[in-house]
Amino acid sequence: MCFSKEEKIVEEILANLVTRNRSFYTQGRVATYIPELALASPDILGISLATVEGERSSGGDGKYLFSIQSISKIISLALALEEVGEEIVFDTVGMDPTPDPFNSIMRLEMHQVNRPYNPVVNAGAIAVVSLIPRENGRERGNAVLDLARRLMGNPELEINQKIFESEKETGHRNRSLAYYMKSTGTLKGDVEDVLEGYFRQCSIEASVEDLGVLGATLATGGINPVTGVRVLASRTCRIIRALMVTCGMYDGSGEFALRVGIPAKSGVGGGIVAVVPGRMGIGVCGPSLDSKGNSLCGMKLLEDLSRELKLRVL
Amino acid sequence: MCFSKEEKIVEEILANLVTRNRSFYTQGRVATYIPELALASPDILGISLATVEGERSSGGDGKYLFSIQSISKIISLALALEEVGEEIVFDTVGMDPTPDPFNSIMRLEMHQVNRPYNPVVNAGAIAVVSLIPRENGRERGNAVLDLARRLMGNPELEINQKIFESEKETGHRNRSLAYYMKSTGTLKGDVEDVLEGYFRQCSIEASVEDLGVLGATLATGGINPVTGVRVLASRTCRIIRALMVTCGMYDGSGEFALRVGIPAKSGVGGGIVAVVPGRMGIGVCGPSLDSKGNSLCGMKLLEDLSRELKLRVL
Amino acid sequence: MCFSKEEKIVEEILANLVTRNRSFYTQGRVATYIPELALASPDILGISLATVEGERSSGGDGKYLFSIQSISKIISLALALEEVGEEIVFDTVGMDPTPDPFNSIMRLEMHQVNRPYNPVVNAGAIAVVSLIPRENGRERGNAVLDLARRLMGNPELEINQKIFESEKETGHRNRSLAYYMKSTGTLKGDVEDVLEGYFRQCSIEASVEDLGVLGATLATGGINPVTGVRVLASRTCRIIRALMVTCGMYDGSGEFALRVGIPAKSGVGGGIVAVVPGRMGIGVCGPSLDSKGNSLCGMKLLEDLSRELKLRVL
Amino acid sequence: MCFSKEEKIVEEILANLVTRNRSFYTQGRVATYIPELALASPDILGISLATVEGERSSGGDGKYLFSIQSISKIISLALALEEVGEEIVFDTVGMDPTPDPFNSIMRLEMHQVNRPYNPVVNAGAIAVVSLIPRENGRERGNAVLDLARRLMGNPELEINQKIFESEKETGHRNRSLAYYMKSTGTLKGDVEDVLEGYFRQCSIEASVEDLGVLGATLATGGINPVTGVRVLASRTCRIIRALMVTCGMYDGSGEFALRVGIPAKSGVGGGIVAVVPGRMGIGVCGPSLDSKGNSLCGMKLLEDLSRELKLRVL
Repeated sequence: MCFSKEEKIVEEILANLVTRNRSFYTQGRVATYIPELALASPDILGISLATVEGERSSGGDGKYLFSIQSISKIISLALALEEVGEEIVFDTVGMDPTPDPFNSIMRLEMHQVNRPYNPVVNAGAIAVVSLIPRENGRERGNAVLDLARRLMGNPELEINQKIFESEKETGHRNRSLAYYMKSTGTLKGDVEDVLEGYFRQCSIEASVEDLGVLGATLATGGINPVTGVRVLASRTCRIIRALMVTCGMYDGSGEFALRVGIPAKSGVGGGIVAVVPGRMGIGVCGPSLDSKGNSLCGMKLLEDLSRELKLRVL
Repeated sequence: MCFSKEEKIVEEILANLVTRNRSFYTQGRVATYIPELALASPDILGISLATVEGERSSGGDGKYLFSIQSISKIISLALALEEVGEEIVFDTVGMDPTPDPFNSIMRLEMHQVNRPYNPVVNAGAIAVVSLIPRENGRERGNAVLDLARRLMGNPELEINQKIFESEKETGHRNRSLAYYMKSTGTLKGDVEDVLEGYFRQCSIEASVEDLGVLGATLATGGINPVTGVRVLASRTCRIIRALMVTCGMYDGSGEFALRVGIPAKSGVGGGIVAVVPGRMGIGVCGPSLDSKGNSLCGMKLLEDLSRELKLRVL
Repeated sequence: MCFSKEEKIVEEILANLVTRNRSFYTQGRVATYIPELALASPDILGISLATVEGERSSGGDGKYLFSIQSISKIISLALALEEVGEEIVFDTVGMDPTPDPFNSIMRLEMHQVNRPYNPVVNAGAIAVVSLIPRENGRERGNAVLDLARRLMGNPELEINQKIFESEKETGHRNRSLAYYMKSTGTLKGDVEDVLEGYFRQCSIEASVEDLGVLGATLATGGINPVTGVRVLASRTCRIIRALMVTCGMYDGSGEFALRVGIPAKSGVGGGIVAVVPGRMGIGVCGPSLDSKGNSLCGMKLLEDLSRELKLRVL
Repeated sequence: MCFSKEEKIVEEILANLVTRNRSFYTQGRVATYIPELALASPDILGISLATVEGERSSGGDGKYLFSIQSISKIISLALALEEVGEEIVFDTVGMDPTPDPFNSIMRLEMHQVNRPYNPVVNAGAIAVVSLIPRENGRERGNAVLDLARRLMGNPELEINQKIFESEKETGHRNRSLAYYMKSTGTLKGDVEDVLEGYFRQCSIEASVEDLGVLGATLATGGINPVTGVRVLASRTCRIIRALMVTCGMYDGSGEFALRVGIPAKSGVGGGIVAVVPGRMGIGVCGPSLDSKGNSLCGMKLLEDLSRELKLRVL
């Protein structure tokens, strides 16, 4: 199950996979909706594996820091599940996948019971972060950062202030979603304050090595294999892994399940965290995105890796 | 992995699970959209397991025959994938889950490229059966029946003529979907002829024991563990298992993934086939359905079974 | 009010308006969804006025014959209103305008009570023709033809057989709409039989002179000013004129009300009938259509005419 | 045309119509979305006529003051048309009716060019008020108030501060619409500032006598018949009257055109202004609303009045 002794072989495999897949970046585009994201080099590509025994291997741009964006949605969801419980969370948001773009207002409105479809569409994630019992949005953002540090075993993770300010300044679509939910009673509290927490969590910066450990912690059922500390209940991890499979890759989730066959969650910063339950976590990052908002090279790399290491669970 | 020596224990577990979950039938309703389905007793409940070694155990109403309905969609999809190939199939239908009811016309129209969302919404399944290279709809329906027999290891499976006639007589929603696809060029050929094949496949009758073997064949990667015959390529099985996870339970797929955590496909006859890759297939049937069209007792039973035998793959 | 003595002046005005507006045809396109329509010359343009005193003047291609297409919807609606009454008609279809293309399935499904929005979207018109109490679709189509002859004072009007056959052969979108309504119970009877009547009424051939008299009959409140015969009740005419204003020009109705300001109904054969209550009817035809399905030159011509003769009622 | 000498007869007719229609209030409900509106007595009913010669007659609660709400949309539209011109206004918003509820976000998003459907849906009205060239939202609101005073010939009209504050505090649906338009670039400037102007215009208080004069000014083509001052260009009045017919009564516009047959605009405060071009304006108010947001008794009263005085223009 572990490949500790073949670490060199694994690193060689990873390096080859990075080389083989890097050139696909020309077929995609770096996210441009906020100026800070648009600065990323499109040809960056990194990967990191962390086994449930805590062994790690990396390839390509393993140390590159990027904002985790929508990957933060599973962290705030984990926090909400642990602090307010499944019942309240799933009274507020649904559990069903949606084929629509990640920030659709139309979908939000059509959902008759006025619940966002699931916790990983933008509306759902905004509703989820509002549930975290902290004094204000800033504190909620900091609580998500604190959990991210423990899940990734990296106490030095920080929020990128420039990205946070940029999100806050330009996030009118998210304001529209939040005010809509405010008008239907789904969202409590002050909208700008709720968004403060949401924009903060999206701006957490990490490397693929950090994401690999996050994935490994979800793979063990909640024990960080690097620090040895239990961070989440195993039930919380199951819920998150299931959501990753059905809705983790925006409206490309169905195709990703077919091609790669493991739970994963992407962000528009180019990162993807993937989980092989009982075996390992994987972090990848390539900022060039496909039309659905997923890292193009990252997905290709995961498809190759899944085939070569026989990672599929589906 | 196998429980051959503990077969009695397993049968006891299954009997207990049936007893524990049967009473939930009062919370649902038998499908009534065709008269033949409305005749089913709502309190029927059966389950059958088939391991990848070919061992079988059943509980409750294991011999009860029911029409497999939407479960046939994965069989015709398998046939189309093997006979015309992935490329043509997924040029015709998408791979993405949809949160909408299983026969939505609205969704069909909104999908801009005029492809049904995926092969297991009604529109997608109608498009898929039309791809099977046979002379006419009757022959396509028979080809699906033939594959069903091989997948379930039961050469005696038949189409229920009364249900077939009833589907044909009342299937105006499906006619509407098919004519819509005809008007956009997605569907070739004569609409009534295409529907003949579709209604035939929906009317195939089987027991939970048959579904268990179907599931086991998908679990092995294509070899029927009872007959020992390879029926499908392993890649076909992977595609089907992935689709089962993301869209197998209509718009209850997300919640099912959370609660049960294994690939499954349901039909409005009350049947569900579930797959634990590398381990076993499971067939259940309880005709009382929830509002999304899934067997109410069947899902509860699978949730209990998944927890007790630790079947989750997510 | 009448311009009988200035008939020559009027004919001169009409001739000038035709000359001035004919060249706009290059900005539009002839309907191509059935081969027969695609054969029309795009630069045809004709206009005809008929006063409530029965005086007529024409300009341009006044004798050109074209299929009236959606203009027939107001004729079959008039027939249904007179023969089965307002209550049954408006239990079956709504009265509200819709901004969507004239044959939207999506809109049909979203309308919660399962009524088409109004009698002039395709779904609504199909539902309306099904209400006409005749033995079968052929007879319903003939009854609409008979009423058209009386409204236009032209007993020689006929159904164009080639166009009728072509509509029938290619009308899959209308079949989809009809089967959808069949599945929800909105439509009674055999779908192909209902469509027979609908395709027949769409294929009635007329000239702009005929349409002018139709408009004049609606302008008088139901008495054909040429034949002197009362053809419709005044209340029926009021209902039809009101529907023409709010939904007569597909989703260009709002803009047409602003620019021209009189009730009108268009068809994809290029015809438009317009009504100035108490004053006159106007028929125009120019087969080159804008993106919404309305005659491009026809609308421009009506805008000029409305301004020059001060025809606005809004 | 005028009924100056029969003023007493008219007042008698109006009093009778009020008596006959008042009891319908029990079938509707007072608007409750802001507390101030919920305080209105449901059985209030008043009507006032103003001819194009400036003669006035009233019946029922003629002096009752209510907030004009959506009726203000035609006033701010008139101001924008006169100050920035048709081209800019209709580049920003469409002209087409919509069958959907008056504050639909879904519709806004589906409209592909990212323009609200028309100037009288909430999104459209917010976009229109933002176009008025004043320093800030407060000044825009005051400019609409100033035009309202001139259109109604009443320099004492004021904004109801309590209603304004209430709108501002609870208008989250409108904030959602505005931020959505901000995110698509349709709306320029600060969202809260734009909404300040919009909430102000909605909170203008008037009586049915004021609305009657507003209607009469639109009926003359822009000259206030009481003050004798030209307030609007005749083209501006034509545009507004056309929009009133196709979209003035929310998604009840089609039915209102059928039943009453004259241009009208309603507000959720219970007011309706109606226009008979070249003849008169009519103001009515009854706070009990139907499910579409229109005054129930007000519409019934106008239907009777239109029939008795033969006011239909359609």
